[in-house]
Amino acid sequence: MLARDIVELILEKRSHQPQPNSAKAFAPTNIALIKYWGKRDAVLNLPRTDSLSISLAHKGTTTSLEITQSNQDEFWLNNELQPTDSAFSQRLTEFINLFRFNNEHYKIQSESNIPLAAGLASSAAGFASLIKAFNALYAWELDSAQLSILARLGSGSACRSIHNGFVWWQKGLLADGMDSYAVPLESTWNELCVGLLIFDKKPKAIGSREAMQRTVKTSYLFENWPQQVAHDLSAIHEAILTHDFKRLGEISEHNALSMHATMLSAWPPIVYSNIETLQAMNKIWELRKQGLNLYFTQDAGPNLKLLFLKQDHAAVLENFPGLEVVEVFSSQQA
Amino acid sequence: MLARDIVELILEKRSHQPQPNSAKAFAPTNIALIKYWGKRDAVLNLPRTDSLSISLAHKGTTTSLEITQSNQDEFWLNNELQPTDSAFSQRLTEFINLFRFNNEHYKIQSESNIPLAAGLASSAAGFASLIKAFNALYAWELDSAQLSILARLGSGSACRSIHNGFVWWQKGLLADGMDSYAVPLESTWNELCVGLLIFDKKPKAIGSREAMQRTVKTSYLFENWPQQVAHDLSAIHEAILTHDFKRLGEISEHNALSMHATMLSAWPPIVYSNIETLQAMNKIWELRKQGLNLYFTQDAGPNLKLLFLKQDHAAVLENFPGLEVVEVFSSQQA
Repeated sequence: MLARDIVELILEKRSHQPQPNSAKAFAPTNIALIKYWGKRDAVLNLPRTDSLSISLAHKGTTTSLEITQSNQDEFWLNNELQPTDSAFSQRLTEFINLFRFNNEHYKIQSESNIPLAAGLASSAAGFASLIKAFNALYAWELDSAQLSILARLGSGSACRSIHNGFVWWQKGLLADGMDSYAVPLESTWNELCVGLLIFDKKPKAIGSREAMQRTVKTSYLFENWPQQVAHDLSAIHEAILTHDFKRLGEISEHNALSMHATMLSAWPPIVYSNIETLQAMNKIWELRKQGLNLYFTQDAGPNLKLLFLKQDHAAVLENFPGLEVVEVFSSQQA
Repeated sequence: MLARDIVELILEKRSHQPQPNSAKAFAPTNIALIKYWGKRDAVLNLPRTDSLSISLAHKGTTTSLEITQSNQDEFWLNNELQPTDSAFSQRLTEFINLFRFNNEHYKIQSESNIPLAAGLASSAAGFASLIKAFNALYAWELDSAQLSILARLGSGSACRSIHNGFVWWQKGLLADGMDSYAVPLESTWNELCVGLLIFDKKPKAIGSREAMQRTVKTSYLFENWPQQVAHDLSAIHEAILTHDFKRLGEISEHNALSMHATMLSAWPPIVYSNIETLQAMNKIWELRKQGLNLYFTQDAGPNLKLLFLKQDHAAVLENFPGLEVVEVFSSQQA
């Protein structure tokens, strides 16, 4: 099934007339605590397992969408015009084409307050904000499940950036993925903090799509990954409901390291950690031995995201000066 | 079943009178290309899978065994008397007790030309040389399968250090482990070199026994490890028979990294690599991109063992000055 079929299914009977001529929307980036790793359908970005994330409140991407009179699209990223032949523009064009019904063209301007392409889920916030801008521009009035499905067509994890707070992406069972979208959990947790420990703002040596594919194809150990995810999801859900931080931290860190383990066991091996990553991990483990309740998660990049409670904010900052801290719930935008 | 039962079974009808009063034996250390990781019986050191190693010719341990008139054993390691209450002495005492039939005591002196307890299989060479010394001291005239079984009771991988060259440890199926011993492959490979890249001669932070147990108990991904080993063994056997070095290198490196991946996915996570390990891996991968046929394997420690052919000896040394190189077959001792 093609992505365009899904779009037509969802947008059936909806307007293709912009009202007014431009729109703007924000979507938060999201950090998976239980990772999305491995697809069952690479065209529709359907995952092999559920996943669970936390959206980073005001950290994310604002995208404005404007109909132009030009005969081609124009992409601006953080105020820089992107070359038409760049990988960025091509991936975006492919996505835009799904929503082009009357040969219109767009000027798209994205501004992100997170480093791009460094394993900080910038593409998730990008695609989610873009689909929200489309929804506003054409006044489609889609519900959040429909927005989530459409965002997913751009980048799997983008389906989670439609929501704030804790978000659960159900993998779904249908071949067309109409049941594969993200839903928000009701639970909040005012004490919960995420710290962004950024060593490297450079784009990754190997993209997460390719890394995921190579892992699925060449890692023997990956075969048992879905079993771990199933266990971790139910355990972390319970930890969220009971505000059991130690459990949340352990499950998140174990899950992230296991995802990286599947990459280490791929061939050729994929190692996102650099020397600073390894040093920071050792430091975190040492601090934990000394009694600090500090855990981490890591995505397809060298940077770490620290997990801790507000009461330990000062102690964490002392050990990681300059850490960018997001109070996920208490600083949440409307 | 107790280890002592196995010893009594094997030594039934053999002499317990020393002839003469002391004996000495050498055993090489061995580097597993397909790793032994996970036990099916922790008392008898019976593995969950077969494994395959290469013995490092003249690199290993020489042990001399002498009956003393003292009422306790005495252990010397590289000319240093070991405290009776050290972990080393206690583990050795436990092993010696298996072979003590007339309340005799021993002075045991081991000399190793490899760093101890740094993931260089020093305990394998130690136990193998000790059991060979026992065999000589009492003129038991055991065959190599029997020696291998008895060495295994001290340390699993010691069963492989009974032989030179390529060695295959069959896991066996019997509960008493009488079919779990190492056999040598006939193949030789004069061109094959192993380079010891030693960053750290300190004992490991966590011993391989404990790491193995924790991995089996807590890693979901470990469940698929036996499948990888089964595949890797048949592939590397073919590579050895056909002298396909690229294949041997790839399979060895993939297998080693997958073993470390199972540890990364254990909880708490186990990471033997340090910063120098990571730097060296990146360097090796970079050199390989440039066309050098260089691979590595890694055991339960930060050090790497490089695999390459004699024709690349100079190029490898240029990149890793001071590397200790063993020409595994051409420098083999009788």
